[in-house]
Parts: sequence; C-alpha cells; structure tokens
Amino acid sequence: MKAIQINKFGIDQLAVVEVPKPVPGAHEVLIRMEAASLNFLETVLVKGQYGSIGFPFTPSSEGAGVVEAVGAAVTEWKPGDRVMTHYTQLWQSGKVTQYTNSQRTGNTVPGVLSEYYVIPEYALVRTPAALSSVEAATLPVAAVTAWTGLMEYANIQPGQTVLTQGSGGVSLFALQLARAAGARVIATTGDAGKVSKLKALGADEVINYKEHPEWYTEVKRLTNGEGVHATLDIAGTSTVNNSIKSVATHGFVGLVGFMTGMSLPLDFMSLWQSLARVQAYSVGSKASLQQVANTFAYNGLKPVIDSVYDLSTVQDAFYHLESGKNFGKIVVEIK
Amino acid sequence: MKAIQINKFGIDQLAVVEVPKPVPGAHEVLIRMEAASLNFLETVLVKGQYGSIGFPFTPSSEGAGVVEAVGAAVTEWKPGDRVMTHYTQLWQSGKVTQYTNSQRTGNTVPGVLSEYYVIPEYALVRTPAALSSVEAATLPVAAVTAWTGLMEYANIQPGQTVLTQGSGGVSLFALQLARAAGARVIATTGDAGKVSKLKALGADEVINYKEHPEWYTEVKRLTNGEGVHATLDIAGTSTVNNSIKSVATHGFVGLVGFMTGMSLPLDFMSLWQSLARVQAYSVGSKASLQQVANTFAYNGLKPVIDSVYDLSTVQDAFYHLESGKNFGKIVVEIK
Amino acid sequence: MKAIQINKFGIDQLAVVEVPKPVPGAHEVLIRMEAASLNFLETVLVKGQYGSIGFPFTPSSEGAGVVEAVGAAVTEWKPGDRVMTHYTQLWQSGKVTQYTNSQRTGNTVPGVLSEYYVIPEYALVRTPAALSSVEAATLPVAAVTAWTGLMEYANIQPGQTVLTQGSGGVSLFALQLARAAGARVIATTGDAGKVSKLKALGADEVINYKEHPEWYTEVKRLTNGEGVHATLDIAGTSTVNNSIKSVATHGFVGLVGFMTGMSLPLDFMSLWQSLARVQAYSVGSKASLQQVANTFAYNGLKPVIDSVYDLSTVQDAFYHLESGKNFGKIVVEIK
Amino acid sequence: MKAIQINKFGIDQLAVVEVPKPVPGAHEVLIRMEAASLNFLETVLVKGQYGSIGFPFTPSSEGAGVVEAVGAAVTEWKPGDRVMTHYTQLWQSGKVTQYTNSQRTGNTVPGVLSEYYVIPEYALVRTPAALSSVEAATLPVAAVTAWTGLMEYANIQPGQTVLTQGSGGVSLFALQLARAAGARVIATTGDAGKVSKLKALGADEVINYKEHPEWYTEVKRLTNGEGVHATLDIAGTSTVNNSIKSVATHGFVGLVGFMTGMSLPLDFMSLWQSLARVQAYSVGSKASLQQVANTFAYNGLKPVIDSVYDLSTVQDAFYHLESGKNFGKIVVEIK
Repeated sequence: MKAIQINKFGIDQLAVVEVPKPVPGAHEVLIRMEAASLNFLETVLVKGQYGSIGFPFTPSSEGAGVVEAVGAAVTEWKPGDRVMTHYTQLWQSGKVTQYTNSQRTGNTVPGVLSEYYVIPEYALVRTPAALSSVEAATLPVAAVTAWTGLMEYANIQPGQTVLTQGSGGVSLFALQLARAAGARVIATTGDAGKVSKLKALGADEVINYKEHPEWYTEVKRLTNGEGVHATLDIAGTSTVNNSIKSVATHGFVGLVGFMTGMSLPLDFMSLWQSLARVQAYSVGSKASLQQVANTFAYNGLKPVIDSVYDLSTVQDAFYHLESGKNFGKIVVEIK
Repeated sequence: MKAIQINKFGIDQLAVVEVPKPVPGAHEVLIRMEAASLNFLETVLVKGQYGSIGFPFTPSSEGAGVVEAVGAAVTEWKPGDRVMTHYTQLWQSGKVTQYTNSQRTGNTVPGVLSEYYVIPEYALVRTPAALSSVEAATLPVAAVTAWTGLMEYANIQPGQTVLTQGSGGVSLFALQLARAAGARVIATTGDAGKVSKLKALGADEVINYKEHPEWYTEVKRLTNGEGVHATLDIAGTSTVNNSIKSVATHGFVGLVGFMTGMSLPLDFMSLWQSLARVQAYSVGSKASLQQVANTFAYNGLKPVIDSVYDLSTVQDAFYHLESGKNFGKIVVEIK
Repeated sequence: MKAIQINKFGIDQLAVVEVPKPVPGAHEVLIRMEAASLNFLETVLVKGQYGSIGFPFTPSSEGAGVVEAVGAAVTEWKPGDRVMTHYTQLWQSGKVTQYTNSQRTGNTVPGVLSEYYVIPEYALVRTPAALSSVEAATLPVAAVTAWTGLMEYANIQPGQTVLTQGSGGVSLFALQLARAAGARVIATTGDAGKVSKLKALGADEVINYKEHPEWYTEVKRLTNGEGVHATLDIAGTSTVNNSIKSVATHGFVGLVGFMTGMSLPLDFMSLWQSLARVQAYSVGSKASLQQVANTFAYNGLKPVIDSVYDLSTVQDAFYHLESGKNFGKIVVEIK
Repeated sequence: MKAIQINKFGIDQLAVVEVPKPVPGAHEVLIRMEAASLNFLETVLVKGQYGSIGFPFTPSSEGAGVVEAVGAAVTEWKPGDRVMTHYTQLWQSGKVTQYTNSQRTGNTVPGVLSEYYVIPEYALVRTPAALSSVEAATLPVAAVTAWTGLMEYANIQPGQTVLTQGSGGVSLFALQLARAAGARVIATTGDAGKVSKLKALGADEVINYKEHPEWYTEVKRLTNGEGVHATLDIAGTSTVNNSIKSVATHGFVGLVGFMTGMSLPLDFMSLWQSLARVQAYSVGSKASLQQVANTFAYNGLKPVIDSVYDLSTVQDAFYHLESGKNFGKIVVEIK
C-alpha cells in the first residue's frame, strides 16, 4: 500500500512510499483511509521543531475511512462501517492521565496518511452520515480541541460570548460549536477579505487585529466592558496577554497553539484582575469526539474545508498550512 | 392603586382591592407593573395547600414592568427602565443558602399582581428589548426553573438529548432552552392535538403518554436504548419512576413539580442502574435570570403565551391554570 | 487449587472444591490470594436475591495477596508484589460508564475466594506496606464505597460534619476517612455496647437509634439545627427519610445499602427543604482505591476487622455477616 | 479613639492619631478591636507600590475583637460577641464577582488598625472559643487564602501531597490545613534553622531551596516522579516555573504572592506537559472564613504567631514583615 513517510526532518522530505498493508490484531481494526487532515502540529513535527520522533515517520493525527477488516475479538465494528480515528487513543472519557495520554495518533504512534491504517477497536468513532470522509477527517483533533476548551473546561452556555482568533481549523470549529451552543461569537482576523466569510459562518462581530493591535479593547467595547466568557489562544507569545485581557471575571483562556512562540510573558496583575483561568490542555477524549460527532449530526453542521490535496501533493498541503493563509481545514484525500 | 388580594384561601376569594401606592426606601425601586405571570405554585398557595401565609396575600411570583421611581441610594436603575422582578430576591449567584432562599416574591414577601410594586434594587433584571412585558413576565420563575435544571445542574451540551414533559410553562421553556443549547428534544404530551405545536416549537420527537403509559420505553427506543441526559419531572408521584427510567447513565432528573402528588415512591435498584441524579432544587439565582434574558435576546426566542387575562379576570386565569389545559404561560396584563 | 463455590443458591451450599490453578494470559496477573473479605452483597448474591448468576459461582469482591506470576506482556507487576484486587476492573478513573461498570470481581466475573486468582494487569493496586493482606482485603469494596461517597461526591472538607450509620464495614470506613479528612463525625448505633468502640475509633458523638427512632432530630440538635454535610444510608427503606432529614442544605445522602429494603418512599417536600442530593452510586474507580491506599498508608490507619475465618469456615463467616452483629469487616484468610 | 494612619506613602509615615469613635448604622456593628494582623499586601499598599489609595489611610485587612454595640436593625450580633472581620466584605459564598470583590477591608475601605471599627453585620464571623483575638486576627486573610487555594480550587483530599513555600503566614496555614485534611506536606525553606520548626508544625519533608535552586527536582524525587497535587506560589517571578514543574498532572498552582516580582515568564511546553492549572484568585468568601474557623476549632489548631507588636510599635512590625524573616504571622495587639 501507499503511505506518506519522512526519513529525515523537512517538508521537502515527505514522500509517497510503498509499504506492506498492515494486518489487524485480535482487538484491532483495519481501516481503508479515505482522508487525513493536517494541523499546525504536523508542520512542527515534520520540520523537527517538536523533538525526536522515530523514522520513518508517517504524519497526520486525524482521519476518516471505511472499516476493511476486523480482528478476531472485535464485536463493535464490521467491514463497511464508516469511522473516524481517535487521536489520544487510550483516553476514553473524563480527565486524561499520563497513561491515557501516551498513545497519540500521528505523534507517538504512526499517523494516518496511508491507504490503510490499523487502530485499536476502542479508538474509533462512527462518522456522521451526512459528512463525507474528507469532512469527517477534520474532527478528531481540530474540532475536539475546540470542544474540550469551550464545552468541557469553559462550560459555555447559551447567551454567553466566545472570542475566536483567526481562521484556522480550531478557531472555525470554535465558532461553529459556540453558535451551536447558543453563544454569541466575536471573531478576530488580520485579513479584511475574511470578514464576510466569518460572518457567513456565524460570527456576530469581527475585529481586524491589524487595525486594533490591542484588540482586547475592542472585545471589551463589544461586550459592554465585561469581556468574553472564553477564548482559545492559538498564537502564544504575541497574543496571550490580549487573550487574558479579553475575558470576563473567571473567564477561560485555552492555550491551544503557539504559532508566534512558546514563551508566555504573563503578568500577575492582569491575571488577578480577571481571575482568568489560563489553561493548557490535551486535545480531548473519545467521549468528546463522540459528542462532536453528535453535535455535527444533530445541528446539521459542516466542517469548513479550505482545500483538498492528494497523496502526490502532500508537500503542497504542508506548505499551504505553513503559510497560514487557509480559511478552515486542509485535507488530504486518499483514493 | 389596585392590587389582587385574598383574605382567606380559595381561588374564588381573589379580588381587586384598592391599597396605598407604596413608596420605595433608599435602596428600593418602585415598579409600575405591566404584567404578572402564574405558576402552579400560585394555585397551591391560594387554595391553602402549601401551608400558612399571611393575609391579606397578593399572589404571583414573576412579573415585569417599568421603573417608576427609585430610592435615594439607588444608582443602577432609573425611571423608564424596563425590568423583570427576581423571585428569590437575595440569591444573586452560586448556590442558594437558607438565608438567600428566604425572601421569595409572591411567597414569603408579597406578589406582583398589583399596579405598583416595591422591590430591593438588587432583585431586578433588565427586560430584553425584543420582549413585551407580557412576555418578560414569564421568565423569572418558569424559564429560570428550566434553566437551572438543564444548564446549572445537568450541564446540557450540544448533541445531547433532553426530555420535556407536557406543555406547561417550565416544560416549554425547557424545550426552547435545550434547543438553544444545541440539544435534541423529545417531548411528551397526553393530547394528540398538541403534537404539532410541540414540533413547531422545536421538539424532534413527541411521545403520547396516554398511548404509552410506560413512556420511558419509548424514550429508550428513540435514543438507541441509551436514554436522555436530562428531564424535568413536573408531576411527581405518577411520573417520577418513568422519569428515572428515561435517563442515561448519570442522567439528571430535576424534581420541579408535584401535580399528581408529593410522595415519590422510588426504588433503590432503578436508581442504582442509571446512577441518576434525582434532585429537588430552588428556582434559580439572579445570575441565572440574567442568563435566561441574554439567551432569549441573543437567540431571538419568544416565550409561549397561552392566554392573557387582566386584573378583573384573575379568577378565570387561575381556574384555567388549574385545568392544566394551557399550552405555555398564562399571564395577567396590568393596565 | 482450592476454591469456594456454590452450584445452587444458599449459604449452606458454600463448599471448598478443588479446581485447576489458572494460568495468566499475556496481559494478566496470577495472584496467590491471602485473604478475601465479605460484603452484604455477597449474602444477597449467594442466597439468590440479586438475580441470576452463572454456576458454579465463587463469591467475594475484594481480596489481597501476592503476585505469583505475570503474563508475557506485563511490565508493571512482578512476582512477590503485594496487591489488592480492584472491584470494577475496567473503571480506572473519572465517572463510570456502562462499559467500565461491566466487569465486576465476584459479581459479573468470578470472586476471589480461592487460593489463586487471575486478574487483568490494570485491575490491581499495591498493598500499603503497613497493612497485612487480611487488612488490605477489606479496602477494595467497603473502604472505596465510603471514599467515593464522602470524597468524590460529597467533597467533605475539614471542619464539616459526617453522619455514619451503624458499625458495618462501609460505615466504619466512612468514620475513619471522615476523621482523616479533618471532619467531625456523628455515628449511630442500636447497640449501647458499641458506643465506646465507636468513640474509640474517632466518633465525636454517638446516637442510639433505638432510643431515638426519629434520630434525625438528635443529629439536628448536635449540629445547632444545621444538619450534617453528608451521610451514607446503609439500610434503605427504613432509614432513608431519617437520612434526608439529617443533612444540611445541599447535603449529600449516598445510597449504599438496602438491608431493610429497596423501596425508598421519598417525599418531595423534604427533598425540597434540604435540597439534598440523594444519590445511588457504584463502588469506585481504581484511582479511588489508590487514594484509599495512600490515605491508609499516610495517615497510619488500620481497617477494623471484626473476625477472621478460613476456607473451611466460610459458611460461618456468611452467617455471621448476615446476623449484622459484626463491628467492622469479616475476612476469610486463605493459607 | 486611637488609630494608625498614613497621610503619604511610607512605612515611616505610620502614626498613631486620635480620631472620633465611629457610630454603627442600622445594619452595622461596632467592634472594639483587640488585634490586627499584617500581610505582605500591607507593605505594598503603605509604600505606594500598589496604586492610589485615599489618604488618610488606615491599614490592615484582618483583625479580631469584641462587639461593642450594634445598629438598630442588627439581630445576629450582640455586645460581647467575639468576632473576626471578613476581608471581602460583600462576598458571602460561591464565586466572587466584580461587585462582591469591591469592598475590601484595609484596601478599598479602611483597615482595622484602630481601637474601634464599624463593619456591616454580614461581614463578621464568630471567633473560635479556643483562640485569642491575637490568634484569630490572622485567619481572615492569610488562612482563608490558604483555604481557598487548597480546598476550594485544588480540592485537596487525604493521602495527596501539598507543597508549601517558605514560612510566611499563608504558607504555614497551608501546611496546617493540608495536614488537617489528611494530606502529606513537603515544605521549602531557605533557612536551615527553620527546618525543625517546619517539621514540628507537621511538614513531612523540607527542601532547602538555597541548596536546590531547581527545587522542583527534589519535589519530584520525593513524590516518585509524580509531583504534588497543589502548591501556593508566593514569590512570583523567580518561583513560578519551579512551582509549575513541581505539580503532578492536572496539579494546581495558586498565584498568591509576588515578593520577587509580578512578571510571570511562563512556557507553553511546561504548562502543556503538566496540564497544570495556574490560577490567580481572590482571598475567599465569608463561608470560607467560617470553614477555616470550624477547622481550627474542631481540629484544635493554633495559628503560628511570629511576634506581637502594639500600636506604638507598628512601624517595627512593618519593617519586620518587610524583612521576610518572620516564621508565621505578625500581629499588632490593640489594648
């Protein structure tokens, strides 16, 4: 079968190789992958900025496909089932532990950019009927990250306000999930051309952060001085203090990205003034992926797909993601 | 000014009387009431089935109107402000205490069925602009009861399922709030003629409990055997066990009414099988009323008004409520 | 090896039989059992009052021993390790699910009353060094039940008050754990001869429920009318309303037993007055058993052992448990 | 009456002045103060490093005394009652809001360093019988800060481990409260002479941070690599990263002080690795002060008093606090 691999660091090292088709163990499932989706972490991993990984390495932490075969002991799944792969494979529900955080698709275990993929039976969730595999491939990491922050930590309720930052995958999912939960959304963007797209997706207000470098002041203005209940900070160093100053008393700042750097120069006084919870967290449990699937199914949501590549153009997909110009998710279709 | 009073128990004792217009103290607000709404508790109180109350007694625990005057020390409110009265006047946020539960509008302190009403400055919430006072009068008890159960206790999230029971005020608000929160709704009714109304309001499924006396089996069938995440039991004795059997593992059963009796013949085994939380609770805090107001405003919701009476027809309003034939709230407009 | 089995219901059916010594699978551990402990559920199961179980059936849901051998894939355990068996084997942490509740030692899978026992590698906790296996055998069900109620649900804090009922295993553990958590303890007993024992164990006050059939009035008197923060109801039908009336506003009543019956004749008004949480729950997670072990180790606690039997006198152990005359746990030592 | 005042910034400006004895309003209580206690915030306020305050300013945020007189509407208190003043006067229970955080003793309203003090009736808690006023004066800020962090946020349970830092008031209270809650304590100190004092107070282990500048490695060593469940960071800039690296997965780092600076140079990766909650918070509610009082009373605890000054030596008390050489609380007795 075909798979994407690197044998040394670099986007230009991504290559299609031929490897043996894997065979599922007794408690495993073999999936014919139809799509894999990319996250910022992929570029960091492939470029060698995350730390050591074992070569050859196949990237991508989220994907979807069709069950091709199941191990002898598997009863929950059968060939033909449409499924999504779970990222933190051992984390089923509740709070993650060191142990349940240890087996991560496309990180500590191989990723899904291949024609077939073997995964433990407990690390799958059924794909909602209305979603294609290209669409479903975007849920396991990006949508679940938005869910965990907004719904599990911040406990967003109808009538509250959520601030989303930019137009990457996590942020657009945050926008959609916040609206599905009955919450108002303020979005930021640095690109005037994306304002109407954000509004079409449900943003009630859009702030251009290039026009307002201290954009927390706009957030406060749009919330009668109160601030928002939650935001997911995706850029780290350059945004985290704006994020903290944007939230209301006891507000939630999820630390979900570090595009501008990992150092977080916080300040006791601004934390104390808002009593904000500034929280790094892991992506999410399988129960959360199931809830995301239920939400997309019940509320008729569709993931925002920026562009679709195939195995032969995976390098282009990575370069496009690296550019930050995407509006929504970048997916690799596997045919 | 005119007010409704009873001097002994009985719906037929409800009478319009002339009393002095009250004067607000330093930290109080005088409201010109435009509407008062009725709840099941009102009929219980007026008929003397709740316990002793002081005569003369003016009923109604929820209302809306316009600020007429404010006490010398009041800075938050000014004449002309459109406001709703808060029920548990001292309960501002968090969990209720014996103390903050002690001062209840239309219960331990006079009700709002009068042309003017004096209330502490901290026991008011602004009326959403899009709602009339007749509409807003229904939020402080009925909608807040639904909110507290679904959002504060059961923590309903998008994609989950809520079961609503019948078509009284609390249940219809539960239906609307669950849908605003992105949740699926299964409703029950004993009246085939109400099925289409419930669906028009957003119910995804409707069960006729007369056709299915063991209606929990229908609930399980409609949820793939799993059960719902939350329900608010409004009838007590005859429904509570159906309610408990309707919920999923760790599901929530809010005990919010007792139309068929106060004795609750529970069973250890059915509680143990579902690990359900079966919980009596007080209506809700001022923060919750504020969140209800925000939700109605942001999500463009309208309370379902069954019928509107005036001071001269208050007895009719009570008899109608007692009949249980209403679909939504019964309001008394005060002109 | 020797094991206790029944082939039909009845305490008099308990017999020592010779069965093959089990062999651990790749991810399993073989334990040489040194002690098994009994709970009320055992008598119910053995007498056929719980429902169908598969024969032959070996009872006992909690035990301790020494690792004899490990499966090829096991890395966490090695021969010689002193261990306790976990009851709800799949439930590792967080909230239980239907799945993680499905594999229960001595209930849905065989019990530990045998010379050797095979268990999955994830269902063991290390025995605290200061405890013998006879002592440690009492923790996995009885102590964890007390822990889950008081610490996971009721979140008991120093300076609060806990009410314990009688002198069975769960209640004495509740007494010890409440005191370890800095809480005050009021205990009940029907036996004047046990008052001094309860006080020696740490009870601050003891109420004789035979002298005070409405013992909640004594509880209120001893708490300045406020009530206790939590109690674990162990008798069901005849005690649950006394339990509910004994707790403070928002107090916790854990439903952990049903010695006097499973019907719970509750009352809306008393629930509403206390806003009590009346909650059935499953025993506890492996994380909770680990916390119990840590607590006993760090705080130098010793389980209260009423009496120790051996395999040849298991029937006597069950009859003694059935009599309710025990003060603390009944253990079967396996030599 | 005598009171301490400053009319411009500086410890050397603290002076005893004669001012009129205040008269309680209808809902107020007049206390004859017997003791006031100092916190690090006092030195910051008096030296003008906190921001603007109104002159003349009387410092001290926590104190104890005897009710001298009550306003006409007060029913809960009577002359002779021994009481402690509550710091965040409006915050009764639950989570603080901007409003309930606004009226802070010795900060936004006058402090208690005076012979008499008037306070609203709702901002008092009864002094435990076994504590002198000098002892009780230390609870409202320092002990409540420790309580809120450990018990309300971190939810410390028996058998868990708490790390305390140094020997200031908050840290020693954290040590005592953690032990009262059945938790193990690791303490740090920079002074070898304080090791035995910390152990006498209940510390299980003491780390000298001068010998181990990267003291988190010692913490990890003493916890089998796991880390502690909670710590209260008291020094800010120079300690916060050691604090974060000291906690276990999902551990709690309360930000309660900033002796070495307010800038907090955090790092995404270390937050992500521990999933730590790093949380600034306000002191605590009146309910928490009541729980602290109950805990001290029930568990027979005594606050650690470093030294006692009187009104004439208040400057010395401040200089001593500023030196950081104290072991426990510095109190000003008022006779």
